[in-house]
Amino acid sequence: MNGAESLVKTLVGSGVEVVFANPGTSEMHFVAALDREPAMRCILCLFEGGTSGAADGYWRMARKPAATLLHLAPGFGNAFANLHNARKARSGIVNVMGEHATWHLAQESPLKGDTEGISRAVSHWTRVSREAGDVAGDGAEAVRAAKGGQIATLILPANTAWEEGAEPVVAGEPARPRMPREDEIAAAAAALAEPGAALMVDGEALWSDLGLVAARIAARTGARLMAPFFTARQRRGAGSLRLTRLAYEVDPNRAILADVKTLVLVGAQRPTAFFAYPGKPSLNEAPGTKVLALASLEMDVAGTLHALEAAVGAEGVDLGAEAFMPLALPAVPDGVLTLDKVGQAIAALMPAEAVVVNEAVTSGAPIAAALATARGHDWLVTMGGAIGACLPTAVGVAVACAGRKVLALSGDGSAMYTLQSLWTMAREGLDVTVVVFANHVYKILHGELANVGATAGRNVARMFDMVEPKLDWVALASGHGVQAVHCTTTAEFVAAFGRAMAEPGPHLIAVEC
Amino acid sequence: MNGAESLVKTLVGSGVEVVFANPGTSEMHFVAALDREPAMRCILCLFEGGTSGAADGYWRMARKPAATLLHLAPGFGNAFANLHNARKARSGIVNVMGEHATWHLAQESPLKGDTEGISRAVSHWTRVSREAGDVAGDGAEAVRAAKGGQIATLILPANTAWEEGAEPVVAGEPARPRMPREDEIAAAAAALAEPGAALMVDGEALWSDLGLVAARIAARTGARLMAPFFTARQRRGAGSLRLTRLAYEVDPNRAILADVKTLVLVGAQRPTAFFAYPGKPSLNEAPGTKVLALASLEMDVAGTLHALEAAVGAEGVDLGAEAFMPLALPAVPDGVLTLDKVGQAIAALMPAEAVVVNEAVTSGAPIAAALATARGHDWLVTMGGAIGACLPTAVGVAVACAGRKVLALSGDGSAMYTLQSLWTMAREGLDVTVVVFANHVYKILHGELANVGATAGRNVARMFDMVEPKLDWVALASGHGVQAVHCTTTAEFVAAFGRAMAEPGPHLIAVEC
Repeated sequence: MNGAESLVKTLVGSGVEVVFANPGTSEMHFVAALDREPAMRCILCLFEGGTSGAADGYWRMARKPAATLLHLAPGFGNAFANLHNARKARSGIVNVMGEHATWHLAQESPLKGDTEGISRAVSHWTRVSREAGDVAGDGAEAVRAAKGGQIATLILPANTAWEEGAEPVVAGEPARPRMPREDEIAAAAAALAEPGAALMVDGEALWSDLGLVAARIAARTGARLMAPFFTARQRRGAGSLRLTRLAYEVDPNRAILADVKTLVLVGAQRPTAFFAYPGKPSLNEAPGTKVLALASLEMDVAGTLHALEAAVGAEGVDLGAEAFMPLALPAVPDGVLTLDKVGQAIAALMPAEAVVVNEAVTSGAPIAAALATARGHDWLVTMGGAIGACLPTAVGVAVACAGRKVLALSGDGSAMYTLQSLWTMAREGLDVTVVVFANHVYKILHGELANVGATAGRNVARMFDMVEPKLDWVALASGHGVQAVHCTTTAEFVAAFGRAMAEPGPHLIAVEC
Repeated sequence: MNGAESLVKTLVGSGVEVVFANPGTSEMHFVAALDREPAMRCILCLFEGGTSGAADGYWRMARKPAATLLHLAPGFGNAFANLHNARKARSGIVNVMGEHATWHLAQESPLKGDTEGISRAVSHWTRVSREAGDVAGDGAEAVRAAKGGQIATLILPANTAWEEGAEPVVAGEPARPRMPREDEIAAAAAALAEPGAALMVDGEALWSDLGLVAARIAARTGARLMAPFFTARQRRGAGSLRLTRLAYEVDPNRAILADVKTLVLVGAQRPTAFFAYPGKPSLNEAPGTKVLALASLEMDVAGTLHALEAAVGAEGVDLGAEAFMPLALPAVPDGVLTLDKVGQAIAALMPAEAVVVNEAVTSGAPIAAALATARGHDWLVTMGGAIGACLPTAVGVAVACAGRKVLALSGDGSAMYTLQSLWTMAREGLDVTVVVFANHVYKILHGELANVGATAGRNVARMFDMVEPKLDWVALASGHGVQAVHCTTTAEFVAAFGRAMAEPGPHLIAVEC
């Protein structure tokens, strides 16, 4: 068999079941090999940022890697922003990037570019296959890296795809992640019992039963249980753990951390400002706080928490009902539409086990607040700060979670970066309800401009405000094949959202309030 | 003044008048400085690929660099594909990329990324400013590089923008490009007089009066005057030079070059296949052809042609009418709509001095053929093979060429990559008529799949065909604020195109035939 066929069989044989594809003319043999493999689900995205964002969302819920199929250097460039976001989410992805035949790179053809350079700028793992016989082994290594939560990019020169003499390989498992030393566990256990101690966790502890272990440690030691502001996946709503979440802005973050004397980090990193600002610190804990970075997210977070649980003697602790968020649904709202009422309507009407992808940059906070006691759900946010993740991530989530409602909350500015994902939702019949907050402005930028002490004049207005003309979200969605409504009253939103919850398939609701 | 202000004043003082912007939260001081500089025109693009493509189109017509304003690493990633295209077009661009304050890079914040790495993967020139006092000098160097046709990327850590103590600098001129040696000129002059000689030119010779020099050399020596298939800008239609253009595919290209015994290249590179194919050569000249690469596009193409003209004694040659394309307008067509009739209608109705940006990948050839004897116009194509350049390039062309009609011919697949540029056309009231060829398929991919000998099954159909659902281009355009019509008959297209030529401002015409 040829190299491309050996790669497809390696991917399928190693558990990669989905490829989010935006193929180009250099990947034809790989495409032909995919065509002969019915076990692989090929999902077309009309822009490469859709492929990488979808693979990110797929990983976060399915906990296994999808592949992307990308055109040589510029196609990978289009995928870059959401690969950056995926990297920050620790989502494993196998990128297959086409490349010219090895000898053709001697010439300056139009599509010749620095495929390795752009890959290395965002991937943990990059390899260029040398010959057809190497492709399957290289692909297996890529899958192994991706299973460990890495961005793995295999660059496939066309001749290594079309030449014969290849055989598939089954990917191995990633190396077992490292544990902290025993003395580090003991020191952390002691520190957690001190007054003013906090345990900040990230990763699986925020969405699986591993969180119960963290909660028992906190209950036994009296430490405060905390979570970062940005989390790749968090269980929220009724039945989820009560914990203290950090804030986005520096000053509220410092207020939250002001009385933390000892901070033990398991899976979480030290609280860091999103940006630097003149006269404000990069690190947000109080001066003199003792920080014990016990385990990074790359280490064995589950093993670390179980060891800590044993060390503090928390194994039998009964958490009690107050450790969990109650179910408390608001009444369905009415009257003048506000963001609070949008949140109340969603909380009242959203079914259990929904997955919410939130990139409503400045509109999301009231929604998040309203959903705190809604029916239990998973909550995903953009992890790398590169807007344009929401719609693609929702695509990947919906592919991974058939049978669950997916809710995509997006600012209008952020939705515009990757709106082509609407078409993929329509094509695949994905059960995604997109709520676009159409305030017609990059509101976060006005906020950041004020943060640096500047005021807005004409050039700022020309760069921050999406007016003259306003975007028509009903037209944009229907152009992609997604039914949509524009709401300016609470009654309209309640009706539209209720219909979207009742009917499967993609819906878009533009909210202007 | 602070570093950001010194940079804005350096750009304006060095002749940079336009910035195509998609600002993020790390560029606030630069934004504030732009806000205090009314001489700078700030044009918002809702996706970064729109900024880089616009700067490419602006350079090709204005012959001076525009700036782009891009968010740190992921924002640059979104601009990458059209920077790749601009690089292949030798379009000079000044990218200003934000970056975290230098000390903040010690922390792993969400937006921290490999800004230098991704820049170096496509830029000729990359620099990270070290302190506020360096920013203006670094900016001047960037402008100087861009004026020489380079992609120049200045990475601006936030503190170098906000700190004081900076002064503006005026950019110098780029180094004078190199001439070939006199003996190389003499050898090329002698070679052009041999039987079966051809002179292939690229760059300014294809659109300015410099082309007359090339034509006189060809007329004097009997050499065939040739042009590459992909040209950043070419004068076409009535009054343009007759020349032989290379073909896209290998076999037609080899046929065109079969009887060329000696090939002299001035500004042009050796004829190279777009891709490698099994059993086909990368280089398309006939075996044994003598190739003299006299001057690359980075060298002094004008000086070289003038020296060659003197060396072959062509200075007084009268070219005669047959050296130029005549004006021969077709009748306005009627009946069943075909691509040929679309071409005839455009040729009949397009005014003189239009600028045509062509990315109608598989539909463009009949249009190009019909426009060969239309009113004189400039013709621009995507130079790096990364589709999604057409609409952004048209934005930049229209900004550079107020008073000229701009015609953007795009495939539906390619238009989807950067359709957000429609909004910028509406916002700025740009006189662009977009014709989208809505065949609902990546037709080029079906062709390339056939080229490698494969047939299409289910997975190929899922990846190549944009059906279920079909995109609605009238809705997509109107959602962005651009009026649009969908045409399935010749009469509809003639009416729509005539109206677009008569009314200023953006129009979109979707053609399905």
